[in-house]
Amino acid sequence: MNEAQPLDGTPAARVIVAGASGFAGALAAQLVWDHPHLELAAVTARSDGGTRLDRLYPRYRVPLELAELDTDLIQGADAAIVAYPHAASAPVVAEMRGRGLRVVDLSADFRLRDPDVYERWYAPHSEPELLAEAAYGLTELNRDRVRGAELVANPGCYPTAAMLALAPLAEQGLIADVVIDAKQGISGAGRGGGDDMHFVNLAENAFAYKVEAHRHTPEIEQSLRELGFSEPVTFVPHLLPLDQGELVNCYVTPTRELETPELRSLYGGRYAGEPFVRSTEAPPGVRDVRDTNACHVHVATSGPKVVAIAAIDNLWKGASSQAVQNLNLMLGLDETEGLV
Amino acid sequence: MNEAQPLDGTPAARVIVAGASGFAGALAAQLVWDHPHLELAAVTARSDGGTRLDRLYPRYRVPLELAELDTDLIQGADAAIVAYPHAASAPVVAEMRGRGLRVVDLSADFRLRDPDVYERWYAPHSEPELLAEAAYGLTELNRDRVRGAELVANPGCYPTAAMLALAPLAEQGLIADVVIDAKQGISGAGRGGGDDMHFVNLAENAFAYKVEAHRHTPEIEQSLRELGFSEPVTFVPHLLPLDQGELVNCYVTPTRELETPELRSLYGGRYAGEPFVRSTEAPPGVRDVRDTNACHVHVATSGPKVVAIAAIDNLWKGASSQAVQNLNLMLGLDETEGLV
Amino acid sequence: MNEAQPLDGTPAARVIVAGASGFAGALAAQLVWDHPHLELAAVTARSDGGTRLDRLYPRYRVPLELAELDTDLIQGADAAIVAYPHAASAPVVAEMRGRGLRVVDLSADFRLRDPDVYERWYAPHSEPELLAEAAYGLTELNRDRVRGAELVANPGCYPTAAMLALAPLAEQGLIADVVIDAKQGISGAGRGGGDDMHFVNLAENAFAYKVEAHRHTPEIEQSLRELGFSEPVTFVPHLLPLDQGELVNCYVTPTRELETPELRSLYGGRYAGEPFVRSTEAPPGVRDVRDTNACHVHVATSGPKVVAIAAIDNLWKGASSQAVQNLNLMLGLDETEGLV
Amino acid sequence: MNEAQPLDGTPAARVIVAGASGFAGALAAQLVWDHPHLELAAVTARSDGGTRLDRLYPRYRVPLELAELDTDLIQGADAAIVAYPHAASAPVVAEMRGRGLRVVDLSADFRLRDPDVYERWYAPHSEPELLAEAAYGLTELNRDRVRGAELVANPGCYPTAAMLALAPLAEQGLIADVVIDAKQGISGAGRGGGDDMHFVNLAENAFAYKVEAHRHTPEIEQSLRELGFSEPVTFVPHLLPLDQGELVNCYVTPTRELETPELRSLYGGRYAGEPFVRSTEAPPGVRDVRDTNACHVHVATSGPKVVAIAAIDNLWKGASSQAVQNLNLMLGLDETEGLV
Repeated sequence: MNEAQPLDGTPAARVIVAGASGFAGALAAQLVWDHPHLELAAVTARSDGGTRLDRLYPRYRVPLELAELDTDLIQGADAAIVAYPHAASAPVVAEMRGRGLRVVDLSADFRLRDPDVYERWYAPHSEPELLAEAAYGLTELNRDRVRGAELVANPGCYPTAAMLALAPLAEQGLIADVVIDAKQGISGAGRGGGDDMHFVNLAENAFAYKVEAHRHTPEIEQSLRELGFSEPVTFVPHLLPLDQGELVNCYVTPTRELETPELRSLYGGRYAGEPFVRSTEAPPGVRDVRDTNACHVHVATSGPKVVAIAAIDNLWKGASSQAVQNLNLMLGLDETEGLV
Repeated sequence: MNEAQPLDGTPAARVIVAGASGFAGALAAQLVWDHPHLELAAVTARSDGGTRLDRLYPRYRVPLELAELDTDLIQGADAAIVAYPHAASAPVVAEMRGRGLRVVDLSADFRLRDPDVYERWYAPHSEPELLAEAAYGLTELNRDRVRGAELVANPGCYPTAAMLALAPLAEQGLIADVVIDAKQGISGAGRGGGDDMHFVNLAENAFAYKVEAHRHTPEIEQSLRELGFSEPVTFVPHLLPLDQGELVNCYVTPTRELETPELRSLYGGRYAGEPFVRSTEAPPGVRDVRDTNACHVHVATSGPKVVAIAAIDNLWKGASSQAVQNLNLMLGLDETEGLV
Repeated sequence: MNEAQPLDGTPAARVIVAGASGFAGALAAQLVWDHPHLELAAVTARSDGGTRLDRLYPRYRVPLELAELDTDLIQGADAAIVAYPHAASAPVVAEMRGRGLRVVDLSADFRLRDPDVYERWYAPHSEPELLAEAAYGLTELNRDRVRGAELVANPGCYPTAAMLALAPLAEQGLIADVVIDAKQGISGAGRGGGDDMHFVNLAENAFAYKVEAHRHTPEIEQSLRELGFSEPVTFVPHLLPLDQGELVNCYVTPTRELETPELRSLYGGRYAGEPFVRSTEAPPGVRDVRDTNACHVHVATSGPKVVAIAAIDNLWKGASSQAVQNLNLMLGLDETEGLV
Repeated sequence: MNEAQPLDGTPAARVIVAGASGFAGALAAQLVWDHPHLELAAVTARSDGGTRLDRLYPRYRVPLELAELDTDLIQGADAAIVAYPHAASAPVVAEMRGRGLRVVDLSADFRLRDPDVYERWYAPHSEPELLAEAAYGLTELNRDRVRGAELVANPGCYPTAAMLALAPLAEQGLIADVVIDAKQGISGAGRGGGDDMHFVNLAENAFAYKVEAHRHTPEIEQSLRELGFSEPVTFVPHLLPLDQGELVNCYVTPTRELETPELRSLYGGRYAGEPFVRSTEAPPGVRDVRDTNACHVHVATSGPKVVAIAAIDNLWKGASSQAVQNLNLMLGLDETEGLV
């Protein structure tokens, strides 16, 4: 409850959180504020300027006022987490990079390698020349590139969970076909939204959305392609009547017969050294990982398929805490610093 | 709020609801109580005897005391809805049938044609000779058999939703492969359950269960076989943090290329005359069908698959209101009588 | 699911529901649609024109398009339920009354007898001359006036529950002082509301609002005054993380010593003949009365005070179903017609 | 996610958490596990022995097996947090004290000074001779006694919130009369409870319980008496459909006229130096303080009364984190160590 940031010694970096008035930005601000080795240099927003963040989000105990992002703020910082909407993010990231800041970008702007694919799903890209330097920040699958990167594209929440569920199979060439059924809490839909996000329309409800096409599909396909699986995938997301939490089921037709014990052994081995990923005996609940950077993965056969289920907190590992995990690596800090 | 049952003229049948202390039985009792042409002859239970049903479940306004089921009660009735656990149900149904009652059984005891399959998934069957006369009560797929039946096996909630989602494709031989991802509210887990059903373990949570094998799989496979698809299916159920509601996604590899408009046309035509099934333009929410016998089905392509989504209320169309729908048909009443 | 309204014979009245795009209006439309003796002549709204009501609210199965209210519609109807915001309602009601319609108004515009009090809490009153003819529609306390009325001011949800809890004490002159602590589901806040009503801000939350002054206070005080208690009251409302439901606790300093048995007897007797109010042995839950016109009242001593607790569904008895209850009386129908 | 406890240097104490299979005990175990200066020596339980705590409660990441409490464990420890039911706790606490451990007891066994009062509300007291040495651990009101204590009776959750709301008024002799309306999430009801705690009975529900008499009433009255107010109070608790969170409204008849600004100033001043209590401008939501040791207090006039509202997390400040706050003081650590 104290107003001074609880730092251990000299901070490793002064960090701006830009876009801190949204759900992911506000959480990123809290994580940086509580981080023993990062100084929260400023929280900025395009709206709500002048509001203290702990008034806008009492649950995030960050006693700083939201400011407007400007050159002075950027020049005074070493790094930034940018939580802007897609298309709005790229020019801000470009300016920050131009002034030497290390940046983790939570938007989709630097996730897709191919600007044509980005344009097809999102919008014209204002900074395509930055795509080459951006590392894709699914930490566990791309740790070495993240470590050396100065710009990290933080993955989408669905791709994070889907790829942690699928990677052990994809890496072994065991996927012939995959269907992804994903469920998420309402915080994944972000602020705004009007009556669609009204409590009354979501309480005691559950439904699929964007059944025919969702922007996270090309992101998942890009990651699978890098692991050797190049077929189109089916991906259907849902909203559930809860705040935070995400459960992603991947139904895989395997390229050879597999039994549950072999699968468990594969996943147990793959994630043995990972500080935040655990292969679980029982199907995970989203409450098990709420308010943490953890991902619990469960694998088994079910009828003729293999099913791999990943549970994460969409706001944490699916967004803000994974951003801090990546920033830790970029700054040479212990990857787990400031995280649970 | 009156204590007398609101009947229009002489009832078509005096109906016992046996097992009325459970969630499905209690709702069945309310539906019979409110039904204009059925008399609720008695509500019975193996526990809670002497308790008024509207004390046990204030939301169900049935002012009758739970009695112990005995021969007198059975002899005084024309029909029964039995909501006992599997294995406990069969002998009670046999006695009722022996005394001439028409019976709708909510348990699994008469759903599976093959007693060996039943024994593999459930328990030894005490009344296998009754299997031949039992009609499988998924009303929309089996209306003619239900109409002439004296014993109806009411389907499981998951098979109800799954088959209403899949039938239009299966009937046309369009299914090459199917994965079923099903989500349900907690009432589907029934009374009891101890700490597993404690509010605190389910609030803000969501998880899969019985991932490797669930008893509804053989029931779904039996129904698909009758429509010409004989391959094993993958079925994974989940619990969601809501009371009533069920959403079942069926991911189908089609036998030929299909586009969404053709699929919508197929489903629209198939269900055009159905009073309780609607093919919807938008993905349905479970709140849309709560407290009704309705099933909303949505179909589209998603990547290389066809996805068919059915939303029902697990306690209504998935159990008690479908039982009344079947009883209406068995008694020669209008199928929609007493239902919404 | 049929498109024709399920009427028994010639309707007693053709009814417009004006403002049917809001929560209370939409429910009123469904109740009129399902009513055996009322014809739903039109559903109108100031926004969402042309939208079918069962698309806007799938849970309300009313297959009519929202129209703009005009003179033709008014002239073609016998009665109306008006669900407009305060101040917007009065001129519409005036026009309807001018053309002879019986009207139940859900807004605050005709609840307060004294236009000065109305202006202090709401806005200037455009039709003060109509105040004299308006009956206050808390049916159980004012049945005779409602029966003869052509304009009924439907009470606020909080005053409905508070007065049903307090009336037996007030009528006997037993109240020396009263504190009202009221809790309500989110539907009570109505459509709109933006981020304040976002699921994420309300899930797992509970809080008081308008602690120092709420517009329902003068309405409660007016009703208490008519029963002989003229002191100011303390009233603090809260929002709870549920959709429908309202629980109102009234803490009364009694004018003489009272014990629980005497209180139970007083309440039991007072509400013995009421079709929708029940004095309960156990404290009522809001789920007990959800989706009904019922009010469950529980009374007991607690320390030196008497506590009287009323549970209603804020959208039903607190708004739309009480409107139908009143309309039934105004039209000479059985008060319980079309209601549960 | 590492299995070794994250300690900074030599621990200040080796701490047993006894009764760690319950909600409060499990959280206490996590808080001690994460504490930089306390070593979690053992987690014990009367049931679930041999189960790893992070299997029983995945959300609490404590990788220790639940053991049976025995003399060896007690002798190897310096302090204990005991989370047993009342009556079961006292003899365990007595044994621990006999072996020199500092103890924070979460049960009611040492809260009430007068053993006759304890017996009237709970059960015969097996260790009345320990009552004299027990400090009542409402930290903010009793910090000096806690600091020197070897046995602390941790307050009930309702008394914690109620007294933090009332203390500024009571200390100034401003209370003539008080009504306490308290609402709590379901975790407050503890493990077990069977069907009463079934999700289905609590979802979308809210209700009062123990309206006529609740065991926390004498505890609140004892605390008020020490601040000079000796009249009986009215206290009515409720359960809300959420997991963690508690909102306690105190309606006070003041001994003299008071306005909101004076009240805000009184509360602001009273809690200015407190690390965990904040006087808020807006009515607090329980989500604002979830998963923290914070208490947000809001005060205002409402009609003729003063209303003081306190929001806490019933499991944290209402139980386990307040226990750690007290243990910090008893051990000479900074009071805020290991807490948020």
